[in-house]
Amino acid sequence: MPSTSPPADPTTVPADTGARAATLDLSADVTTLTAAICDIESVSQDEAALADAIEAALRPLAHLEVVRDGNTVVARTSLGRSERVVLAGHIDTVPLTAVPNLPTRRVDGELWGRGTVDMKGGVGVMLRIAAQVPEPSRDLTFLFYECEEIDGKYNGLARLADTSPGLLAGDFAVLLEPTDGAIEGGCKGTLRAEVVTKGVAAHSARPWKGHNAIHDAAAVLSRLTAYEAETITVDGLDYHEALQAVGISGGIAGNVIPDRCTVTVNYRYAPDKNTEEAFAHVRQVFDGFDVTLGDAADGARPGLLLPAAKAFIDALGVPVNPKEGWTDVARFSALGIPAVNFGPGDPNLAHMDDERCPVEQYVEAEAALLRWLG
Amino acid sequence: MPSTSPPADPTTVPADTGARAATLDLSADVTTLTAAICDIESVSQDEAALADAIEAALRPLAHLEVVRDGNTVVARTSLGRSERVVLAGHIDTVPLTAVPNLPTRRVDGELWGRGTVDMKGGVGVMLRIAAQVPEPSRDLTFLFYECEEIDGKYNGLARLADTSPGLLAGDFAVLLEPTDGAIEGGCKGTLRAEVVTKGVAAHSARPWKGHNAIHDAAAVLSRLTAYEAETITVDGLDYHEALQAVGISGGIAGNVIPDRCTVTVNYRYAPDKNTEEAFAHVRQVFDGFDVTLGDAADGARPGLLLPAAKAFIDALGVPVNPKEGWTDVARFSALGIPAVNFGPGDPNLAHMDDERCPVEQYVEAEAALLRWLG
Repeated sequence: MPSTSPPADPTTVPADTGARAATLDLSADVTTLTAAICDIESVSQDEAALADAIEAALRPLAHLEVVRDGNTVVARTSLGRSERVVLAGHIDTVPLTAVPNLPTRRVDGELWGRGTVDMKGGVGVMLRIAAQVPEPSRDLTFLFYECEEIDGKYNGLARLADTSPGLLAGDFAVLLEPTDGAIEGGCKGTLRAEVVTKGVAAHSARPWKGHNAIHDAAAVLSRLTAYEAETITVDGLDYHEALQAVGISGGIAGNVIPDRCTVTVNYRYAPDKNTEEAFAHVRQVFDGFDVTLGDAADGARPGLLLPAAKAFIDALGVPVNPKEGWTDVARFSALGIPAVNFGPGDPNLAHMDDERCPVEQYVEAEAALLRWLG
Repeated sequence: MPSTSPPADPTTVPADTGARAATLDLSADVTTLTAAICDIESVSQDEAALADAIEAALRPLAHLEVVRDGNTVVARTSLGRSERVVLAGHIDTVPLTAVPNLPTRRVDGELWGRGTVDMKGGVGVMLRIAAQVPEPSRDLTFLFYECEEIDGKYNGLARLADTSPGLLAGDFAVLLEPTDGAIEGGCKGTLRAEVVTKGVAAHSARPWKGHNAIHDAAAVLSRLTAYEAETITVDGLDYHEALQAVGISGGIAGNVIPDRCTVTVNYRYAPDKNTEEAFAHVRQVFDGFDVTLGDAADGARPGLLLPAAKAFIDALGVPVNPKEGWTDVARFSALGIPAVNFGPGDPNLAHMDDERCPVEQYVEAEAALLRWLG
């Protein structure tokens, strides 16, 4: 319910619970707005108050069509531009610290508190753009979504991609996750696989009657240590691949030659290939061993050769790097939409007890997007 | 209480519970006696009935002093011979099969059922020797002990070694565990150690920011695969040493470069060395790694150069092999008493559902000990 307009019928006013709906003033400067957004606590699965405030702040803007879906809010222009850009940000945070790191505090030019990095600065920038640019150079879709910090099955972006992909349509997407003010393009894919060695159990006093599966794993680990990961250029960005053991287990008792050893490997692959191609590579590396695919998620191409992306890079004039970790840009990629990460905040401070961001990063991010879209 | 003598005072006769104390007839042939011993169920910690029957059968033998300690029974001659030999056997068994493999059955020259191999044939032979040899060539100590098949803290032999080592005194010991009719001398020692590699945790999308401890374990496993175990001759027997991984573990999550990997190794070493020397060898093999000693148990020298042992081997005329696994002979060794294993039954059938023994092995074992001691 928009808090800026009176109820149509006073008789339907809900009983006053003593709590007052939080409001967001989009005319405030981006740092003040970001602090206000942070101060509306929104740990994953508890985003209703913030989603209400965002919806209420956007409804009065005549150039935007607003759709609410759960605690996810979509707002779009429809100006008939030749390109459509999606600006996206999640509105949830990880839990607060033991001594709550909210409300925010502003100290020596930095804003401290939960969400100041991941990623309510980006949400603040999005809301400022929505309010200030009624006639953007490209049609815009703003996506404020829930539950990014927990199991993907709750993710608001993933849900809309399933149920209402049309709402997410666009030529290019910017995810305003913290990148320390740089542009991080696309993301690598990730898969896990199990490499299993099999032996024959025996009493460890008479190992010659069996065959030690853990000893056979020496060859698996040797291939990993000898493996030289490639750096692959996609759309002008260098993605550093990696193939690493993330787990190993074997042995059932202290006097038994083990008949099985499992090495779990994680392959992070450039977005020039899909899961099938990536798994074929892993099987090739461990040729001769029993290899089983576990979970996998394709990466995302950065799409930096597209006109919208080129204009974005030219307008921003900031460094352009590949994104090494997997992020929700891959969900856009799966919809056929190239995507990049760009947002205020040092990602190394995300989720940390001392989460904080220099306020000029908010100001610079807003200014950069205004240069591009204004 | 001896079942062959009436109670001293009829008024103290316990109420008839309907159960009749089992008795053992030491004049029966060794196979019949062994079957009777097997048919008195005595799964570990439930040996009272069998210990009662053994005590009752031995008490009437005037040449033996009988001592009962828990469910362990010791019987000794005191003839002033120049050597004393200890014959030892545990009276417990592992649990019966789901469809109980008792009472015993005699089929085609084999005795089937729980205990026929491990090791009531040996117990039967001991009782037959006790009954038939009132004036042995060497003083004899018969040790029938409880709880060999479970945690060593319940072991009757271990308890007596602690509390009454004098009862176990001797120059040479024969443990009548199943050896398929061969002599198995001494036993190897065993120790476990942990070899740990340490790295630096990092996100698996950016492994270059950390250091993979599982990859470092490749070098540990390579040393194991390259390791050539020695064969060491002790008192004329060849002991085959072994150094093997029995466990490996590492990794805390599917997206984290692990900072720790632990390889558990088991070293089975010849009885020419003690735990300290054996662990020094393991540390040398894994020089440069963090190595921690776990549990350990020294082995036992076979003592085959002693006069009693030489006479034993000459009298028996059976193959003499090293014992590869750790057995209770090491408990005698710890008391300074050389010991060998010799008993009827194929050890590969011990604890098995189809536990069984050719009856001629009982007869031959009895005859062999009579040749030596009679």
